[in-house]
Amino acid sequence: MAARLLDGTRIAADIRAELTSRVENCTQQAQRPPTLGILLVGDNPASQVYVNTKSRVGDALGVNVDVVRLPATITLDAAQDVVHRFNCSAAHDGILVQSPLPSSLGPIAEQRLFEVIDPAKDVDGFHPTNVGRLAQGRALFAPCTPSAILELLDRSCINLEGRRAVVIGRSQIVGKPVALMLLHRHATVTVCHSRTRDLPALARDADILVAALGRPAFVTPEFVKPGATVIDVGINRLVDSSIVRALLPVGSPRLETFARRGSLLIGDVHPAVAETAGALTPVPGGVGPMTVAMLMVNTVRAAEKRLEAAV
Amino acid sequence: MAARLLDGTRIAADIRAELTSRVENCTQQAQRPPTLGILLVGDNPASQVYVNTKSRVGDALGVNVDVVRLPATITLDAAQDVVHRFNCSAAHDGILVQSPLPSSLGPIAEQRLFEVIDPAKDVDGFHPTNVGRLAQGRALFAPCTPSAILELLDRSCINLEGRRAVVIGRSQIVGKPVALMLLHRHATVTVCHSRTRDLPALARDADILVAALGRPAFVTPEFVKPGATVIDVGINRLVDSSIVRALLPVGSPRLETFARRGSLLIGDVHPAVAETAGALTPVPGGVGPMTVAMLMVNTVRAAEKRLEAAV
Repeated sequence: MAARLLDGTRIAADIRAELTSRVENCTQQAQRPPTLGILLVGDNPASQVYVNTKSRVGDALGVNVDVVRLPATITLDAAQDVVHRFNCSAAHDGILVQSPLPSSLGPIAEQRLFEVIDPAKDVDGFHPTNVGRLAQGRALFAPCTPSAILELLDRSCINLEGRRAVVIGRSQIVGKPVALMLLHRHATVTVCHSRTRDLPALARDADILVAALGRPAFVTPEFVKPGATVIDVGINRLVDSSIVRALLPVGSPRLETFARRGSLLIGDVHPAVAETAGALTPVPGGVGPMTVAMLMVNTVRAAEKRLEAAV
Repeated sequence: MAARLLDGTRIAADIRAELTSRVENCTQQAQRPPTLGILLVGDNPASQVYVNTKSRVGDALGVNVDVVRLPATITLDAAQDVVHRFNCSAAHDGILVQSPLPSSLGPIAEQRLFEVIDPAKDVDGFHPTNVGRLAQGRALFAPCTPSAILELLDRSCINLEGRRAVVIGRSQIVGKPVALMLLHRHATVTVCHSRTRDLPALARDADILVAALGRPAFVTPEFVKPGATVIDVGINRLVDSSIVRALLPVGSPRLETFARRGSLLIGDVHPAVAETAGALTPVPGGVGPMTVAMLMVNTVRAAEKRLEAAV
């Protein structure tokens, strides 16, 4: 039996629809739309796509997305100046520094930039103070992908309390924060990673399995307890036809997509898991659109808080 | 076969001995000893004992412990004034607000006080920024009890990489930070709590089991895989002789201690676990003395950092 698909595209549309009146209220009160400042450094193609998506979604919603693009050759100081400008700007409610930054800026450039963002405008939730507040269960802004996962689970009526959750991956951006958020929602949470022994057996304990490790089709059916909910956070673009053909069954419509486009997006979860899982997020159309929707939620919340503070 | 006892009293003495020359260097450079300011509000007997222990250990080490005692009747503002005074004082390197605070100060008094501590003097590591840095794996000051646990494991040559660690308890002070620290040391970490189902079976998966839930003798042998390392964070004072007699075997020398004193300290781990575990921290004499030693390590580190910054 095939898993129920957790339709991130549809739920993200619901969230955006619910935001509309809040955006209108903010715009009316502030005499300008809620505004998100994005700093995009360099020309990473995936980052360009993500930033364009954020702009497009913002536009459709009435949220102003102000993208400052800098070449990869700039200094960290110049990038910090842009963040400072956003911090001081009365017209910017939220700030996002698109990662990854070019390696030319040094290994800790992201951390350095996240640290200078005003925590009250930090809609990505990566400032240490916001990371700490999240760990304390009282986030100002929870990071967008973990929030997206929780929202997707909640709106799909998947109960968390007392359930076993296994998170594969321990990144700052997804693995660790989603583990903390699941814990605060009373799941029993295990975090696995590259050093974990007998990972498939451990993953099979999960009622809710979150795959956030960035390796295409890594989570095969042997990782999945029949009926479990599987959240696929990976977005991997495959271009090798022999790999794609090995992953998909003969006759899959996704093979036609691959033939037409020359590439295919595959998650961290193997397509065959759809036969084992009880519920599954598709890639694309699962966590991805939800993440952008949660960025808009955080931006509108930042705008509302500034208006409240101004009263 | 009885478990190897992980002797926190002895290891804490080693740590203090290693600190001596650093304390002397700081004292010589600063022309005053490293100084820890403690705010103690109210007359909670356990808090009095803890603060006295910290003072005594500091004295013996040459660390100045400056305790400001306020009655439970004061306001939160007055308590914050003390913290501000410590923040601005050139003579105080570290600051600690003893918890728990009297309930008369309100439910979020601790959080409010922790938030006004200068993060650079926050030797307990409870300021949101320090909590965030810990979650990011780059703590300025890791909280003392989790640090004590890691130090005890390291100095007992217990390998963590790839091992299964189960933490029972998800407090801000112990459970969550020790889980993150074990994760950063490449253990596969599960956090359990009151809503966890089939806790004994889950705990039995652990190579390293941390009991930090605050319920006397809760962790019985059925929770423990033979040969596992068990870290007992609980300190529960029992006064009921029928309970004490039920926990200890006839002829146990601890029954004499109880008869003499009228009370007995019992951890969160049942005494019978000593027959199942491979290694075990005693209570008292395990995590407790290590925690105070780690407070001194953090205080000396704070003093050293201030001296470096002053050069």
